[in-house]
Amino acid sequence: MTLPVVEIFGPTVQGEGPDAGTPAYFVRFGGCDYRCSWCDSMHAVDPAEIRANAEHMTAEQIVQRVTHLPSGPNLVVLSGGNPALLDLGALVLALRRDGMRVAVETQGSRWRDWLADVDRLVISPKPPSSDMASPDQIAALRAFMSKVTFAPAPVLKIVVFDQADLEWAAARHCDHPQLPLFLSAGTDVGLPDNETISRLRARYRWLCEMVARRSDLRAVSVLPQLHVIAWGTTKGV
Amino acid sequence: MTLPVVEIFGPTVQGEGPDAGTPAYFVRFGGCDYRCSWCDSMHAVDPAEIRANAEHMTAEQIVQRVTHLPSGPNLVVLSGGNPALLDLGALVLALRRDGMRVAVETQGSRWRDWLADVDRLVISPKPPSSDMASPDQIAALRAFMSKVTFAPAPVLKIVVFDQADLEWAAARHCDHPQLPLFLSAGTDVGLPDNETISRLRARYRWLCEMVARRSDLRAVSVLPQLHVIAWGTTKGV
Repeated sequence: MTLPVVEIFGPTVQGEGPDAGTPAYFVRFGGCDYRCSWCDSMHAVDPAEIRANAEHMTAEQIVQRVTHLPSGPNLVVLSGGNPALLDLGALVLALRRDGMRVAVETQGSRWRDWLADVDRLVISPKPPSSDMASPDQIAALRAFMSKVTFAPAPVLKIVVFDQADLEWAAARHCDHPQLPLFLSAGTDVGLPDNETISRLRARYRWLCEMVARRSDLRAVSVLPQLHVIAWGTTKGV
Repeated sequence: MTLPVVEIFGPTVQGEGPDAGTPAYFVRFGGCDYRCSWCDSMHAVDPAEIRANAEHMTAEQIVQRVTHLPSGPNLVVLSGGNPALLDLGALVLALRRDGMRVAVETQGSRWRDWLADVDRLVISPKPPSSDMASPDQIAALRAFMSKVTFAPAPVLKIVVFDQADLEWAAARHCDHPQLPLFLSAGTDVGLPDNETISRLRARYRWLCEMVARRSDLRAVSVLPQLHVIAWGTTKGV
């Protein structure tokens, strides 16, 4: 069985969530059940781009490729697209057998039993600005959450662009208070680097000031996308 | 007994270390046993500035002042200067009795028994670029570490400006492998805002790329100073 791989890169640093700032390799898979308005990884979402660019690899080939990157990290992040559309169980076990910690990022729309086997499960439901928020999304997230156990150290990570997103994130925090919540200030796509950074700074400042004044969000972590601070919106770093 | 308070502010967001991104109040005390070359808080270090500006407050007055700030956070960060020069035991207990989590930031030059009573102990020894690194500093840090217990969730946080700082930080990580290590890319002081940010981004990128390739630093978190991303080098936010 092969898997559609769009990118394998690293060593780099995880830019978001509970492992923000930690050295990591990334494996990005093609295929997504969402079409977020501000998607920063359309090359892993658009079927035509995936068809043109994805390499079809076995779990063992992926492990080999990661192993041959320059050494350093012991964290591998499986991302997409939505990696939970695929069966990555064999890959997760092979990476862990090699001594790697495995993190996965998924929007929480579809449960897979192999998600229980990772070291870190980052669940990133999509707020209104994505155009993907709906009662159906929330129902799917609830069903997903009913499967989540303590084992894969689950957290919620929500990208926030505006006030409506923040209210939506606060409601998810209220629905799932047992999970640590990480808010990422959203990054605008397709702008020159200096404009990207100045907007990111303004949005991060706004989000910090809003969150700091809300007692319902006192346990939350608010972060900018650190990979954008370091590298701008360049791909593959 | 009164304490020399230079600033009390918040709600804001902690910009560094294990609570980076978490809503917090800050209480900054005057007085320091170090004179770091790149100190960003000289108003809490220089004796003349402290004499001119510090307010002398009891623990109870400090708690009152924090309580009357706009509500939100349940984390109070005690900073300086070096707060371990003072007896903050009564303040720590009063804040915790009020339901606050208490974090303290100190360079690890002098132990105080009240440090065992905080919720989070951030120990930030100073690397060569500070002009404070010396065998004596390392010996004092070792003596300090011999007192540290698991209780206050201790971590090491080291500001890194250059390669010599990074090697020094790696040596401290090797000395104290039981403590999580957070590396902060240093911020240059006294520059215009756009220059501050562009240098911070370049240094953060450099630090990420260096750390990501070292297997001795694979468990480390590398962060920029998030308060600088949000607010520049403005004081009191």
